[in-house]
Amino acid sequence: MSVLVTGASGRVGRAVWVRLARTGPVAGLDRAPSSTAQWVGELDDEALLERALAGRQALVHTAALHAPQVGRVPDAEFERINVAATRRLLRCAAAAGVRQVVYTSTTALYGAASTPPGRAGWVDEDTPPAPRDVYHRSKLAAEAVLAEAASAHGLAVTVLRMSRCFPEPASAMAVYRLHRGVDARDVAAAHALALARPGPPGQVRCFVVSGATPFLPEDAPALWQDAAAVLRQRAPDLVAAFAARGWALPARIDRVYDPARARAVLGWAPRHGWDAVLRALDACSSEVLPPAWPAPSIPPASAAEPEPPGPPAAAA
Amino acid sequence: MSVLVTGASGRVGRAVWVRLARTGPVAGLDRAPSSTAQWVGELDDEALLERALAGRQALVHTAALHAPQVGRVPDAEFERINVAATRRLLRCAAAAGVRQVVYTSTTALYGAASTPPGRAGWVDEDTPPAPRDVYHRSKLAAEAVLAEAASAHGLAVTVLRMSRCFPEPASAMAVYRLHRGVDARDVAAAHALALARPGPPGQVRCFVVSGATPFLPEDAPALWQDAAAVLRQRAPDLVAAFAARGWALPARIDRVYDPARARAVLGWAPRHGWDAVLRALDACSSEVLPPAWPAPSIPPASAAEPEPPGPPAAAA
Repeated sequence: MSVLVTGASGRVGRAVWVRLARTGPVAGLDRAPSSTAQWVGELDDEALLERALAGRQALVHTAALHAPQVGRVPDAEFERINVAATRRLLRCAAAAGVRQVVYTSTTALYGAASTPPGRAGWVDEDTPPAPRDVYHRSKLAAEAVLAEAASAHGLAVTVLRMSRCFPEPASAMAVYRLHRGVDARDVAAAHALALARPGPPGQVRCFVVSGATPFLPEDAPALWQDAAAVLRQRAPDLVAAFAARGWALPARIDRVYDPARARAVLGWAPRHGWDAVLRALDACSSEVLPPAWPAPSIPPASAAEPEPPGPPAAAA
Repeated sequence: MSVLVTGASGRVGRAVWVRLARTGPVAGLDRAPSSTAQWVGELDDEALLERALAGRQALVHTAALHAPQVGRVPDAEFERINVAATRRLLRCAAAAGVRQVVYTSTTALYGAASTPPGRAGWVDEDTPPAPRDVYHRSKLAAEAVLAEAASAHGLAVTVLRMSRCFPEPASAMAVYRLHRGVDARDVAAAHALALARPGPPGQVRCFVVSGATPFLPEDAPALWQDAAAVLRQRAPDLVAAFAARGWALPARIDRVYDPARARAVLGWAPRHGWDAVLRALDACSSEVLPPAWPAPSIPPASAAEPEPPGPPAAAA
């Protein structure tokens, strides 16, 4: 099965490209040139889309304007790139013979519904989206475009609503992996599984794709009132690792994205949790930021030692 | 010491930001928003530069148009962004009180001088550059701008000419680490050391920043004639790992970038060699691409196993 990946120069698109390239032919398209963008250009270049889609059986559409561009580009750009270009792309894909589409959506579109007052929100595919800004609205509108295209063209469509997946300070990022963050490699694996186990033609499936959570729905009030206490109960290894590094636990956790349906239907199992974040920090990976400076638990590197030493033994 | 990093959303700029943030205050500037770009905008926005530079003692300038943009944007854009914007940035930096500058340059500017006929080139800081395209010319012109600015403003300037540092097929990337490639974390460490051990005010130092090489200058003819034989002699562990994966060795190696001066003067030691490339492949990192498909040594992932298993024992 030959796959075209849009947004192939971005963090998620590149991870998907790398994952798919292990098992079959894949090509990438992006406005920015990179090792994984065999096709370079804009999504409104229909002739480019036709060339890039020729001979493909599947499409993974990750390209979009994202949250950081809100307020930096006119709202009309979100409509143009996230919605209108998705419609054009799907039309071209169907014309080229594509049968399967995986769309990279976002848990951000749950918006206000993620955070009910007085307790942590428990968010899954049945939670009604409540978009708050043009980014959220445009991603939800694109999902509607996908539903129309699935029906019109008989495409088997999977929508993956993914949670946070960009470099953040390690102490925050590690906790997020328990309830509202995910590793790009796990996101890529979900895309690969969605292609390997497609749903029925003409229909749209939707999955939350977020890190494995140790929390249970009944933890929702306590997560809001005293998150540290819940963490001591549900994630003692993380609590010990944070203590060894001198990091504080969060006082409050306001939401949990529950990926149970992706596990059950796709067989997806997120593998890179909070411990992977700490290992990436210790390996000086650019996929994680140091805790806010000054960071007492990361020894300053001397001039003769270009990289900090490993973590304290208790945290390894 | 407070540092501004330009191009902070790019691969190298982000790695530098992450490295510097471990030991002191750092801010990033980029045209693309990201976790490491506290300032978002263009290098020709002088008011933005003034705000971003206020209170900084050092500047790391990684932002540039790169090789993949050659032919995709007009040549004048290379002059505008890589040269004119560098001149403006240095003027603003000096006015803001910056005393040290590290400039991220490229071994690409050696151009034709890298590859003499009939033997591998042995390239160090004394090799005269021989640029071939507008990218090479613009980076060399920017180095000249830095020399002028060092003299005019008393800045202590370090130029780091770095080799290949982007995702490539693992089999090629691993061999490149022996002679013409480098890990972004090692590049970042070189930037940190250049700041920690500055040269004299008003002067420019230049260093080749490339992976540790096992080759010697006298290997140059044999690298060109029979690279596999030289590899068996100088890098037997890599040869064994390639054999275990069923990968072919290269027949010819055409150049070696020698980072000896960076080792001697900065105390820099590249830590992430060919074995780090193989580990990154096995970890499904997006920093390395799978070997060309079909890749017999990477087992296809089953639908129930989102990620391939580890490497064969012999290659671990």
